[in-house]
Amino acid sequence: MRVHGYSVSGNCHKLRLLLAQLGRDHAWVEVDSSRGETRTPEYLAKNPAGKVPMLELDDGRVLVESNAILHFLADGTPFLPVDPWQRAQALSWMFFEQYSHEPYVAVARFIRGWTPLDSPRRADLPRLRERGHEAFAVMERHLSARPWFTGDDYGIADIALFAYTDVAHHGGFELSPYPAIRDWLARVRATPGFIAMPDPASENAALIAASN
Amino acid sequence: MRVHGYSVSGNCHKLRLLLAQLGRDHAWVEVDSSRGETRTPEYLAKNPAGKVPMLELDDGRVLVESNAILHFLADGTPFLPVDPWQRAQALSWMFFEQYSHEPYVAVARFIRGWTPLDSPRRADLPRLRERGHEAFAVMERHLSARPWFTGDDYGIADIALFAYTDVAHHGGFELSPYPAIRDWLARVRATPGFIAMPDPASENAALIAASN
Repeated sequence: MRVHGYSVSGNCHKLRLLLAQLGRDHAWVEVDSSRGETRTPEYLAKNPAGKVPMLELDDGRVLVESNAILHFLADGTPFLPVDPWQRAQALSWMFFEQYSHEPYVAVARFIRGWTPLDSPRRADLPRLRERGHEAFAVMERHLSARPWFTGDDYGIADIALFAYTDVAHHGGFELSPYPAIRDWLARVRATPGFIAMPDPASENAALIAASN
Repeated sequence: MRVHGYSVSGNCHKLRLLLAQLGRDHAWVEVDSSRGETRTPEYLAKNPAGKVPMLELDDGRVLVESNAILHFLADGTPFLPVDPWQRAQALSWMFFEQYSHEPYVAVARFIRGWTPLDSPRRADLPRLRERGHEAFAVMERHLSARPWFTGDDYGIADIALFAYTDVAHHGGFELSPYPAIRDWLARVRATPGFIAMPDPASENAALIAASN
């Protein structure tokens, strides 16, 4: 089993984290999507959408979309509950993550760290930050009453939401108004086998540091 | 079981279509999200995110996110395969729908039909149309080789992608370059128990007709 991913992408790190915590052997194929490596003819032949992450089985079949891959890998493990209602709630949070969180929290991070300081896309940052804070408010409300997003235990909805929340500061987000989120981030970091996402490369870190 | 939904929302119609095809009894509570009816204290008490659709069980528990609800309702029925790999592919397409299709195809429709002709949001339409066509290109490629999105049979990934594709013209999309998509739309409309989404109200239809 191979994961094609860009190590500093939260969507890709989700898979690395789950696989580490499951103790599942896999090969990691580094694909730097910020340098066009998902747009080569070879890559597009496997994944016409030209995105990471991509799971490739030994027989060549591929699966895309980070949260669909998390769900596939976690099924039958303690990272996805058996109870149908709890499973549904886990999926609900994972759709929330992709629709109401990632397009703001992850995109703000990308713009600050992976586009030039004079990029016109930076004009989007105030709106992205506003919508990102709306997502954090929803998460804070949930976490004020419960320790995890997936039923009674840590699981894939937590992994999905953790990935970009833990690096929200790269996007210019301040999490001090969200004590329940900060406590939850600490709980996730303390789970057995946890591994953190690597830091961005120095040029990306420099752009983040120089951003408004 | 009650579904709270706005009948002319594709995300809501997904549930009405699946429930009709499953023959499952349910009450439909009309909530016009375009008139603030998801922002009342009563609604927010049930769903703090203030969105439709929402599934409410008889005991008061609620589930949000249209595709998570589809998955919950379809599990154990012919609308969601049993095979783990096919189930994963169905989820993959449903995440594609929410990340790479709905934010362009549905949002363009909303802007054209539900915002004033002088709305500043209309400046987004060219970019939304470009990204929507990228989603259609991915769908066309898939459908050129296979009849459905979920394994070998019609299922919830088809329902998820059908909802806004079938009304893409409301967003100013022309589907003539996509013969495989058009054939698939016709196949979906011919499935047993199919019901179409109602037409937008006359004021919304008038805005659509007057839009660029």
